[in-house]
Amino acid sequence: MLGRTYDREVCSAARALEVAGERWSLLILRNAAFAGMTRFTEFQTSLGLAPNVLAARLELFVAEGLMRVTDGEGPGGYELTEKGRDLVPALVALTQWGDRWAAPHGAPIAYEHRGCGGPVRHALLCERCSKELGAADVVARPTEHMEAALARRGRRPNKPRG
Amino acid sequence: MLGRTYDREVCSAARALEVAGERWSLLILRNAAFAGMTRFTEFQTSLGLAPNVLAARLELFVAEGLMRVTDGEGPGGYELTEKGRDLVPALVALTQWGDRWAAPHGAPIAYEHRGCGGPVRHALLCERCSKELGAADVVARPTEHMEAALARRGRRPNKPRG
Repeated sequence: MLGRTYDREVCSAARALEVAGERWSLLILRNAAFAGMTRFTEFQTSLGLAPNVLAARLELFVAEGLMRVTDGEGPGGYELTEKGRDLVPALVALTQWGDRWAAPHGAPIAYEHRGCGGPVRHALLCERCSKELGAADVVARPTEHMEAALARRGRRPNKPRG
Repeated sequence: MLGRTYDREVCSAARALEVAGERWSLLILRNAAFAGMTRFTEFQTSLGLAPNVLAARLELFVAEGLMRVTDGEGPGGYELTEKGRDLVPALVALTQWGDRWAAPHGAPIAYEHRGCGGPVRHALLCERCSKELGAADVVARPTEHMEAALARRGRRPNKPRG
């Protein structure tokens, strides 16, 4: 298998999943972002997951800069950084996919606009013509950074297994 | 650890990651969605990953309904279904996060509007007031389906480990 360097350089989406894609990670981030949870015991009670798993996830989030440890009175808590909060749109997008395709009993969570209470949805917008786009309207183009990444990869070749 | 049922019922985002969050999965879906790839050998050559890993991912995508096997002339190919293509906005959202926070050498891929060539971005919109929202403007509310899911969970208790 190619190393972490490959994913990091050549696919930003894969890199996002490296830090947020592990089992339970999204649920923890969701409870921090939308339910305002900060305490270890709040996450643990709400999710019912093993303390050692929760501790490992929180530790990774802090190491990766998605959360910071707060030191108010009593035991410390965990709060999202800007980097962590910036995952919210991806969370909403993944949730809406899951609601549509993988929630046979109906969507368990509804996202709402804090200001007016309206339902929130995600969209793809063109920054030039301002149109809202469907999936088929989007193309991906490698940038000059892709070429540089591939050149770096060429200088450090990793043989695929198999 | 709680079973798959838990994630499926209580977090649609976690369910999305169960089928698309494995290593290489996003890269394969990205190449299918944006580079028009359909052939096993195209995916294999472009990603340089082990054939057995690629075969396992494609098999899962077909089993989960993200891809279907096509039978044109020559060897069969794989194409995205509507369910698979519907992951595109989440892919764009994850990519934007990764570009901003985890691409020290610059974004390797640019998403463009097929029609006018403008840059594409992912946004959160309020369906009631039509405003574009930031992460802090979004709140999550459990629906009646959450209550039902928790009730089902209560009828099938799973003890957390640890």
